[in-house]
Amino acid sequence: MSSPDRFLNVGLLGCGTIGSGVYHLVKKNKKELERACGMPVGISRILVKDPDEPRPFPVDKKFLSTNSEEILSDEKIDVFIEVMGGIEPARTFCLKALKSGKHLITANKELLARHGQEIMEAAAENDSIVMFEASVGGGIPIICPLESSMGGDRIKKIMGIVNGTTNYVLSNMSSSGSDFHSALHEAQKLGYAEANPQADIEGSDAASKLAILCSVAFQVGMSGEQVYREGINFIRPADLANAAEMGYATKLLAIAERDGEEISARVHPTMIPLDHPLAAVSGNFNAIFVVGESVGELMFYGEGAGSLPTATAILGDVVKISRNIKDPSVFRRPYWSNPCRVKSVDELTTKFYMVLEVIDRPGVLAKIAKVFGENKVSLESVVQKGLGGEAEIVLITHEVVEKNFQAARSELLGLDVVKDIPSVIRVESTEAYEGQR
Amino acid sequence: MSSPDRFLNVGLLGCGTIGSGVYHLVKKNKKELERACGMPVGISRILVKDPDEPRPFPVDKKFLSTNSEEILSDEKIDVFIEVMGGIEPARTFCLKALKSGKHLITANKELLARHGQEIMEAAAENDSIVMFEASVGGGIPIICPLESSMGGDRIKKIMGIVNGTTNYVLSNMSSSGSDFHSALHEAQKLGYAEANPQADIEGSDAASKLAILCSVAFQVGMSGEQVYREGINFIRPADLANAAEMGYATKLLAIAERDGEEISARVHPTMIPLDHPLAAVSGNFNAIFVVGESVGELMFYGEGAGSLPTATAILGDVVKISRNIKDPSVFRRPYWSNPCRVKSVDELTTKFYMVLEVIDRPGVLAKIAKVFGENKVSLESVVQKGLGGEAEIVLITHEVVEKNFQAARSELLGLDVVKDIPSVIRVESTEAYEGQR
Repeated sequence: MSSPDRFLNVGLLGCGTIGSGVYHLVKKNKKELERACGMPVGISRILVKDPDEPRPFPVDKKFLSTNSEEILSDEKIDVFIEVMGGIEPARTFCLKALKSGKHLITANKELLARHGQEIMEAAAENDSIVMFEASVGGGIPIICPLESSMGGDRIKKIMGIVNGTTNYVLSNMSSSGSDFHSALHEAQKLGYAEANPQADIEGSDAASKLAILCSVAFQVGMSGEQVYREGINFIRPADLANAAEMGYATKLLAIAERDGEEISARVHPTMIPLDHPLAAVSGNFNAIFVVGESVGELMFYGEGAGSLPTATAILGDVVKISRNIKDPSVFRRPYWSNPCRVKSVDELTTKFYMVLEVIDRPGVLAKIAKVFGENKVSLESVVQKGLGGEAEIVLITHEVVEKNFQAARSELLGLDVVKDIPSVIRVESTEAYEGQR
Repeated sequence: MSSPDRFLNVGLLGCGTIGSGVYHLVKKNKKELERACGMPVGISRILVKDPDEPRPFPVDKKFLSTNSEEILSDEKIDVFIEVMGGIEPARTFCLKALKSGKHLITANKELLARHGQEIMEAAAENDSIVMFEASVGGGIPIICPLESSMGGDRIKKIMGIVNGTTNYVLSNMSSSGSDFHSALHEAQKLGYAEANPQADIEGSDAASKLAILCSVAFQVGMSGEQVYREGINFIRPADLANAAEMGYATKLLAIAERDGEEISARVHPTMIPLDHPLAAVSGNFNAIFVVGESVGELMFYGEGAGSLPTATAILGDVVKISRNIKDPSVFRRPYWSNPCRVKSVDELTTKFYMVLEVIDRPGVLAKIAKVFGENKVSLESVVQKGLGGEAEIVLITHEVVEKNFQAARSELLGLDVVKDIPSVIRVESTEAYEGQR
């Protein structure tokens, strides 16, 4: 162990759920942290909005301050940990810390997904280290494995369950048969969903995380806005039951693939075969499935949120910074300035699940099949269920080009025999990454 | 990116399945590797027993040599990659490389599980780095996450499926109902089991890997011989069917837990609930499930063997060494000299599954229950199945102390009503790590 000839002085920006968890663990795991870092670690100052706010873990008030100028200009601090969330004032504070030559650990996915390039450039210009393991997947180590363990491989595909709220809601709908709104309400009661769950439900939280994963995995600077997304609010319990009957679990997946010089990146509800490792990830757990050209399939699973899991990921970054404090260049990420060419969703190929409500009379299926055929959409399975004078057709397509499928969907809606198309969900097959090594 | 003002010169010791995979990837992923390392990487010399041996990937013969003295004393080499396997001459070569101040990457689990302390001490004395990500779990990043990402947490428990052969055999027996010997034979035909599968089947391969995981997770020097082990050769298809009926999958698990200053470490067939993430790990995949006091449950999943997955893990170590070549102290592991107190298996507590063949007459169950009660073994479930004049009792105990259970087992075998106890398998419950944070 390198001799503790110095001390790692940490400043905390924000002290809510995650920040007070970091404070708690730095005190509680003092010995472990000193051993892993090769030097003692202490939090000397904490920036807060309101010193009297209730916190999940008690914090000694003598460390708290509401004066950002004072904390950010404190010369004794080596590393700032930013756990405020949101774009401003987090962005301004982070840039200021980096420009003073401080190292930065941030859990702020929104900030990185929108201003990652600016942050990485400021770090490189000032020989500072930026670490962000906690920004994706809470306590799950994923940034470090992508950057260094897989550093000698070409990453082909990423599929992640990176939002605990939507995974909890879908798991609950699936196991209890309850509808979206009751499942969401229960998640809110249990603290798995926020009072305003828009960012989770609509997929923009997952899109930010996917942009960060893509930036690291594919060595580009991707923003969350470049990710195509659909939320889970339209999913019906009947769809989940149909999926289960056909051997699929339904998850909100964040999916990215490298295709030559281009990348596809999308967040949408997806059916995956029940024997896929992601299918068993339920409740508020997260998992990131990665396919490397040489390493094959890997999956990283764990608690994707929560005070102490996220705080543990932050401490892991403290360890890595302390171990590399003599050579900060190892943490430069010049690639964040690389342009990122993201494919249009129209060009993607995937399988689709579709439910059609039709009038139950002879020749209906033929009409529908004709529309699919004319649009180059071929079908893997079709089940017709009679409901008196009406019928429901549940089908899954083979791999098709998105724009062909959407053209067929519009034409189908125009047919006199089709009353409605209540559900369209993408289906992820496992064939895609077999035999590509 | 740090400017490539130098070149990383690699010497390969051994060039079989893994070694030729490393050679292949260093050539194929030249660009990725240079980017990740911040300098170009090249293999300059390769030590082999027989230059004409067939290899999975073609290797330019100009690099091959059978002269170990010459290669080991080559001053231009920065890093040796040892992929020979076995104890000698690998141990002598590794020590010699370290004593010349070279860095070492090894995939050799036997060597580390037996001589880890000697290797780590030689590295520390000579300011060399030792890396061994590929020694456990093939392509799965697990050593680095345990060492740095979880460096600020206290690791409580590890449960791993770390042997692909036994996992393939058990998965196959479970899905096809075939017996141990036919499943093993098929695994051999498909290349998932070696011609001499003793080390896999009897659990000593898994025990070596568990000793390495424990050393890193619990900061001690554990040897493979300190791990209690039972193999899978006694498992009957009927046991797997019973387990499935009761909601369990049967896996060869490597399990370690910290208990104050002591550690328990064991490898044995284990039933785990079907909804546990390890239950879905089938075929030749590996997975390591880790419970941290603060981070909670994590799981790392991937291909546990094979040329290119293992070679990818080795390249990840090359990346980490190149990034830290200026400060080798970050990779010292003084803890490998710490004594390791391993609990006797007699003191462990676990649940057990047991099958008793009994004579079917009144009062049998009462006699059996009396033996359990007198030995402080309480039962969670008992099912009696009549078979004409004989009957079979299938039971699962609550958590019991191993020595109490074994005492009951001996007494039961002495009862006149018990004809045989064909199966005893430990059952891992998920309750153990709930609410401990």
